[in-house]
Amino acid sequence: MTIILDGKKLSEEIIGSLKGKVKGLGLAAILIGNDPASLIYVNIKERKCEELGIYFEKYHLDENINEYEAINLINRLNNDKKINGILVQLPLPDKFNREKILDSINPRKDVDCLTSFNLGRLLKGGDFAPCTPKGIIRLFDKYNINVEGKKVTIINHSNLIGKPLATMLLKRGATVTICHSKTKDIKEFTLNADIIITATGKHGLITKDMIKEPIIIDAGVSKVNDKIVGDCSEDVKEKSSYITPVPNGVGPMTVAMLIENLLYLQ
Amino acid sequence: MTIILDGKKLSEEIIGSLKGKVKGLGLAAILIGNDPASLIYVNIKERKCEELGIYFEKYHLDENINEYEAINLINRLNNDKKINGILVQLPLPDKFNREKILDSINPRKDVDCLTSFNLGRLLKGGDFAPCTPKGIIRLFDKYNINVEGKKVTIINHSNLIGKPLATMLLKRGATVTICHSKTKDIKEFTLNADIIITATGKHGLITKDMIKEPIIIDAGVSKVNDKIVGDCSEDVKEKSSYITPVPNGVGPMTVAMLIENLLYLQ
Repeated sequence: MTIILDGKKLSEEIIGSLKGKVKGLGLAAILIGNDPASLIYVNIKERKCEELGIYFEKYHLDENINEYEAINLINRLNNDKKINGILVQLPLPDKFNREKILDSINPRKDVDCLTSFNLGRLLKGGDFAPCTPKGIIRLFDKYNINVEGKKVTIINHSNLIGKPLATMLLKRGATVTICHSKTKDIKEFTLNADIIITATGKHGLITKDMIKEPIIIDAGVSKVNDKIVGDCSEDVKEKSSYITPVPNGVGPMTVAMLIENLLYLQ
Repeated sequence: MTIILDGKKLSEEIIGSLKGKVKGLGLAAILIGNDPASLIYVNIKERKCEELGIYFEKYHLDENINEYEAINLINRLNNDKKINGILVQLPLPDKFNREKILDSINPRKDVDCLTSFNLGRLLKGGDFAPCTPKGIIRLFDKYNINVEGKKVTIINHSNLIGKPLATMLLKRGATVTICHSKTKDIKEFTLNADIIITATGKHGLITKDMIKEPIIIDAGVSKVNDKIVGDCSEDVKEKSSYITPVPNGVGPMTVAMLIENLLYLQ
């Protein structure tokens, strides 16, 4: 019997427990350009903030602005006492130096935990972490999945997911393998894994023949025939011991962790 | 035929090429307590600095000082124009909060690249890196070892070696597995590895039956019958394609990278 890791339900529990505690805090979201998925994500965050009584400022900037205009806005928000957290919605249009913009956020307001300082603290064993990896760890905790001594394969090596997640899993005693597009044969690293965490946006990357009853966290998001799907093909579910659904797995956890991070920063 | 990765020779080449460029720079080394290996390492650094005309200040503090005395000293050195780089020799006696002390170093003088800010920048893809992992990457470069698409197993998950090295290898396209004391069966991750990097200080951890002609970086240091040895048992050498000797492999590279980092910071 496959157990479904219900991120939607857990995120609602967490947000319920934060209600009242976060009222009156302020969050600023900066969106540059018109990436359709980014527009949707910022709107989800805005609605969640409204629901919780969090003061929300949205800055939707034209992609023709220059880097310094974005940094000036961030500097102003760094000094604005109404604002406890600042997030820059990713991805940014190509012409921007993402790390330079992110690093202009004061680490004390870096609600996404994407400044160099905060990622470095995480690497050194700190608890403050980016939302998606934090949400994944929270799912393990909820379902009493102890990662110590487990073989974990992560298919993603980004600054937002793969690298911070690896450091969090190492802290908890997992043996961690990180795969990506240059990995020649991903199956070699999934077949004996106890836990597989995938976040590539390539539907069908993980198929039934690549696994032996692992725990699967599917943080991939793509669209097939206008339906939101993950990285796993349909038949993977029946062969896994635990699996996150897509949607309603990792996605809602990410938003809950954003609110939790905002509370942490205040 | 096993090829020896001659760290001593390469480090001498690198230091030779830095000669003249680093003269007049200033390095401060802080040593707390009387760990015998630490005393030796600080002396090696002092001698190398003298040889290169680098102004060297050594602070040997009693382990009974409190954290704030160490931090006050670092603050003073942060503001001292003669000093370009500050290093705190590790390990520190247990009672000290290592990360708090390291993070009091101004990242612009953090010659070991161990502040949160500098480690975070590395995680995000930056080039400035701690000395040991940097020295290992330099050995690969010297011997034309391209890690892209290679399966690399690192046996060490520290902030100084394993985690920064993993991020550097991921940047170069390697698939990376990180093992440590909680890994149940290390052989499972060494047997098919193209490259093994070990830094545990446990002589005999890697034996002949655990490998198939890989490239081996042995950054382990321990003493057996008063002889300095690495993590590999004696018979591993004949079965590896490339291997670093111990001593004269990774060790001298670390000192060369310290000097290179000092130049980078000026």
